[in-house]
Amino acid sequence: MLLFYKTELNMTHDILRKRIEIAQGKRPADTVIKNAKIVNVYSHDITEGDIAISDGIIAGIGTYSGVNEINADGCYAIPGLIDSHIHIESSFLSPEEFGRMVVPFGTTTIIADPHEIVNVCGEEGFRYMLEAAKRTALDIKFMVPSCVPCSPFENSGAVIDAKTVAELLQNENVVGLAEFMNYVGVINSDEECLNKISAALNQNKRIDGHAPGLLGAGRQAYISTGILTDHECSTIEEMQQSIANGMFVELRNGSACHNLYVLIKGITPNNSRRCLLCSDDMQPVTIFENGHINGDIKACVEGGLDPITAIQMGSLNAAECYGLTDRGAISAGKRADIVLTDNLTDFNVRKVFINGTLTAENGTYLPQITKQDISAVSGSVHIDKFSSDKLRLSLSSQNVKAIGIIPGNIVTKCINAAVTIGDDGCFQFDPKHDIVKIAVIERHHNTGNVGLGLLTGYGIRHGAIAITIAHDSHNIIAVGVSDEEMTLAIKTLAEQGGGIVLVKDGKVLDKMPLPIAGLMSDKDARTVEANLKRINTAAHEQLGVDTYIEPISTLCFMSLPVIPELKVTDKGLFDVRRFEFTEI
Amino acid sequence: MLLFYKTELNMTHDILRKRIEIAQGKRPADTVIKNAKIVNVYSHDITEGDIAISDGIIAGIGTYSGVNEINADGCYAIPGLIDSHIHIESSFLSPEEFGRMVVPFGTTTIIADPHEIVNVCGEEGFRYMLEAAKRTALDIKFMVPSCVPCSPFENSGAVIDAKTVAELLQNENVVGLAEFMNYVGVINSDEECLNKISAALNQNKRIDGHAPGLLGAGRQAYISTGILTDHECSTIEEMQQSIANGMFVELRNGSACHNLYVLIKGITPNNSRRCLLCSDDMQPVTIFENGHINGDIKACVEGGLDPITAIQMGSLNAAECYGLTDRGAISAGKRADIVLTDNLTDFNVRKVFINGTLTAENGTYLPQITKQDISAVSGSVHIDKFSSDKLRLSLSSQNVKAIGIIPGNIVTKCINAAVTIGDDGCFQFDPKHDIVKIAVIERHHNTGNVGLGLLTGYGIRHGAIAITIAHDSHNIIAVGVSDEEMTLAIKTLAEQGGGIVLVKDGKVLDKMPLPIAGLMSDKDARTVEANLKRINTAAHEQLGVDTYIEPISTLCFMSLPVIPELKVTDKGLFDVRRFEFTEI
Repeated sequence: MLLFYKTELNMTHDILRKRIEIAQGKRPADTVIKNAKIVNVYSHDITEGDIAISDGIIAGIGTYSGVNEINADGCYAIPGLIDSHIHIESSFLSPEEFGRMVVPFGTTTIIADPHEIVNVCGEEGFRYMLEAAKRTALDIKFMVPSCVPCSPFENSGAVIDAKTVAELLQNENVVGLAEFMNYVGVINSDEECLNKISAALNQNKRIDGHAPGLLGAGRQAYISTGILTDHECSTIEEMQQSIANGMFVELRNGSACHNLYVLIKGITPNNSRRCLLCSDDMQPVTIFENGHINGDIKACVEGGLDPITAIQMGSLNAAECYGLTDRGAISAGKRADIVLTDNLTDFNVRKVFINGTLTAENGTYLPQITKQDISAVSGSVHIDKFSSDKLRLSLSSQNVKAIGIIPGNIVTKCINAAVTIGDDGCFQFDPKHDIVKIAVIERHHNTGNVGLGLLTGYGIRHGAIAITIAHDSHNIIAVGVSDEEMTLAIKTLAEQGGGIVLVKDGKVLDKMPLPIAGLMSDKDARTVEANLKRINTAAHEQLGVDTYIEPISTLCFMSLPVIPELKVTDKGLFDVRRFEFTEI
Repeated sequence: MLLFYKTELNMTHDILRKRIEIAQGKRPADTVIKNAKIVNVYSHDITEGDIAISDGIIAGIGTYSGVNEINADGCYAIPGLIDSHIHIESSFLSPEEFGRMVVPFGTTTIIADPHEIVNVCGEEGFRYMLEAAKRTALDIKFMVPSCVPCSPFENSGAVIDAKTVAELLQNENVVGLAEFMNYVGVINSDEECLNKISAALNQNKRIDGHAPGLLGAGRQAYISTGILTDHECSTIEEMQQSIANGMFVELRNGSACHNLYVLIKGITPNNSRRCLLCSDDMQPVTIFENGHINGDIKACVEGGLDPITAIQMGSLNAAECYGLTDRGAISAGKRADIVLTDNLTDFNVRKVFINGTLTAENGTYLPQITKQDISAVSGSVHIDKFSSDKLRLSLSSQNVKAIGIIPGNIVTKCINAAVTIGDDGCFQFDPKHDIVKIAVIERHHNTGNVGLGLLTGYGIRHGAIAITIAHDSHNIIAVGVSDEEMTLAIKTLAEQGGGIVLVKDGKVLDKMPLPIAGLMSDKDARTVEANLKRINTAAHEQLGVDTYIEPISTLCFMSLPVIPELKVTDKGLFDVRRFEFTEI
């Protein structure tokens, strides 16, 4: 088994002496990366030479010999890449498997916001992530979720108050308070919001932002509290305002959401030091196809950015933003987080070193995988009070409001439509209309809550789908053409401890358990990717979901009551425009 | 009396609420700076508008009204300036008076290394500086001196070992370990050196460097320990190596030492973010004539640098280097440390705000001055065992080695010369030769140590001069044409508790007490400047010191045994080239 180091504050003169002697060639280095073209993000140029490593730290750059010598064969050596904002859970992978997936693409540090699992499992979920993170060579720094629950209009699995935030912030692997999505709360001086922000400020920790479309005085009020970053800028104007007001702007290139391509055009030599790269939400398929931060850097270069500037955004700038003074560059005294890449156009990754250890090579993660025990975050589906009659939707009129899906978007439209009412006075699926029932079943506290709505634009015309990934409270979302099939999907989901279930013709068609909080698999990324692909194909081909819609990732946002226009939570149908519940 | 704030980690939601409301114009600001041209060091441009301030912090930039409105009259608003490395003691002023002097020039934060007073008074001196610093609006962040004593070849007043370093680093106003001058110790892995460095690394504090001429593997070894800055680069090559290896380079423009003018030519748009400004050692006369950091910025602009880049070097870059995340720019959420200047060429300072309070206006510091009690650092001259016969220099040969002054330089030459020997077999001053006796008298521990040497190139031909400023151990240095006059100067110095004494014709000609550790006056800068000017004039005109030599500031480096070639300490004549004591 390969070993790797974690940064710890246990420096001694013995460690320093060895490093000093290696730097001066007085003793062989632990490892030398020979013959590299080294990208220098400080001086913005490229040097040819060897990199000498001592106890995981770079001792020097020049001509060196070592106990272990690895020939870079003229590859470019760039600093280990940093994803400045990501939710691991969106990959459906555990931290261990997420590390195995992304390290071969050159990612060596991520700033993770475990917002999803904490919404389900609370502090227990946070601790699980911290522990699991110790089992991957990827260095995972955490932010404490700031908005759990995300809104008062739904039941989540947990509440993280300001006092708990203050406690969790003290962990040595926590660098700050995660994206403060409740920007309305901030600019309206909600006391609990401000207490959470104060907790971070008083511990001198960073605070991430999330303020789509907030401009002018509102944005300044938000920033005046010390909120330091934003990954939600959708226009160059928003980006420029954010930078001018002192923010670091994270250019996002996730599986679903991308502002990177728009914002690249706003990057100048004068503002690039305030720009970072992030993925926010990434599924395995996207990473296997396009890479991770290395893919973003490639996109930046294709978009006209100088390669070294793009590399700075994915390394030094992120390290500076989050106060990670031990990394972000290839230079003496920094962590030996080093990526070897063929060229500075494709950014194909050949080898990845983390803390001086060769950790990935030609796409393969080298350390042996061990797994954190998941029992504390398993068995998260609690729906004893659920019964199929809770899905009955009695209507007084054929004229209804339906949630209208916009392909490729998590914003929905409120659609007025006419539906068929059965003899029992309840909604009845009519194959002539693309309108189906959608239900959100509370799954954390056995409340028995079920919220009902109607969905159009999804296309399903057979069977049912049920999932436990339901932003941000992660209740169960079920859609289907019959209550019976929806019930079967829901109950099967409960039996397998969460995940995804497809039902057709009264039988389970396919399923993927997600035992970790109902959000993450215990399997590897390739298995998860294959399962998802098979499930999506079945949803399209067997159940009739429209081919231009991602069946699962679209569905899981239908319960998020902070994104317009119409959504459904376990408490009922919610009009986001008016911020109030509404009738069908 | 005007009040000002000190940054403290006591944020509450009340403070934030007020700031948020002010940012949005929902209530009047405490103070508004109206009609400014605001220099934005993030976006590298200039915005016209008002700056709203809440409890000392900037709430927003735009159109605001406030309880207190101050019209900037179209002046440029630039961030409060930061001197990234300075020894306050070299100004001969206490921290309170230093603040009064530099704040009107736009300096709002300094990173101070109290190396001199700590060499005299040890921890007591450090604590005095911390306490005195609380009495000035200037925000003084301290570094813990790393090299006390400076060398083993002299007696200093105190020893600061690694354990003490670790303790002092814990103070909240301490940002790191001061310039590690003993770079030879570092690259040779001296255990005590490495223990001090470890102490700083383990507390995640910054470490300043000082490594003149150290290049290649040696520089990398030095940097590999985490040493982060250097202010001793004398060539563009040295600067480029330092930046490429991850250092911040401090361009120095002190009273005596300037590398700024050379290094400006090496600054590029790609490396400027790693460049800072510092003064290291500044006397009042230089500040009153040329300004402080504002003068450096002016010099940068005259040297061809873009004004906003130069301002970044004197603000944002220094804040980033030292982890001062609360300052360095004019933007919402940052400390309202703001300087109003007429233009971006001369950088004449009109008004200075510190933490939102108007602190200086048209050259005048506004807060009332209160003084820290100096009794703990007074009475620092202890020479009970001194007697004039200790100055007798018996010579076996007329052929001697003399310390040869090089005008404008602290490096000396070893000069071979012939001198006159008196009937008593001792050196005797001969008006035909420019060679006088120089003595270093230990003054901390009553050891009775007196080191003797000969000095040429100084020009003194009447009387004697004695001072307690004697880098870095700050013993007494005396020069003169007769033992009697030297003795009178030394004894008068002891009676007045240190400072400067001039003797002519057997009588005291002039004197300036420096009661604070024998290094600093308790008077204001204008008084000190006038005294120094009068004393220097007297030394030139009455005692005959060469007019192209600064009588006092040249003399006080004659005991520094780490600067070539020949120096004298209380232990004797020292050949710096061989690093050993030598015979006259």
